[in-house]
Amino acid sequence: MANVYDVAYDMEKAIRESDEFKRLKTAYEAVMGDAAAKGMFENFRDTQLALQEKQMTGQEITEEEVEKAKQVVELVQQHTAISTLMEEEQRLNMVIGEISRIITKPLEELYETK
Amino acid sequence: MANVYDVAYDMEKAIRESDEFKRLKTAYEAVMGDAAAKGMFENFRDTQLALQEKQMTGQEITEEEVEKAKQVVELVQQHTAISTLMEEEQRLNMVIGEISRIITKPLEELYETK
Repeated sequence: MANVYDVAYDMEKAIRESDEFKRLKTAYEAVMGDAAAKGMFENFRDTQLALQEKQMTGQEITEEEVEKAKQVVELVQQHTAISTLMEEEQRLNMVIGEISRIITKPLEELYETK
Repeated sequence: MANVYDVAYDMEKAIRESDEFKRLKTAYEAVMGDAAAKGMFENFRDTQLALQEKQMTGQEITEEEVEKAKQVVELVQQHTAISTLMEEEQRLNMVIGEISRIITKPLEELYETK
């Protein structure tokens, strides 16, 4: 019987060596290596995180903030390197979501049997 | 290079065969096989979920609801089979949390390098 942690380290290695991760790494380094792109991307991140935090703590989000967030999204979507990075993030997130669905299947099945 | 999904299925199998999962399964089946325990456990779950939902959607939680939730928790903690189940759930959750930390390490490392 394989130890769960041994398999977890195999999984870490498989992710690190996957095309999806390598492409994300390349896209991330391209953005981080360009001062203007880096600034724009970090501004986008900060705006998203601030809105998320407000949402999660039940604070009101003003129309002005929604408008500002929309503008930031539009701006980064027009930047090729950043939009590539966002696409690669989404791809890897899908892979991780799928992995997560697979490994939580035993639990899900157990809790279905009532 | 191992395919991430192949490793995910190995992981699913390793979890299913782990002592932690087997113990949880036994504890869960013990509760589900006892009508009184089952009802008490489900009442506890429903109360927790309802409070969580209120919290997440920013709805106010009354003092009465907090009091009711406390009583439900106290009740299930006194029930040996249910408290065993809750302990086993916590143990498996710790294992899954640890697995999750291991497999998201590549991403975490990538996003640390700015």
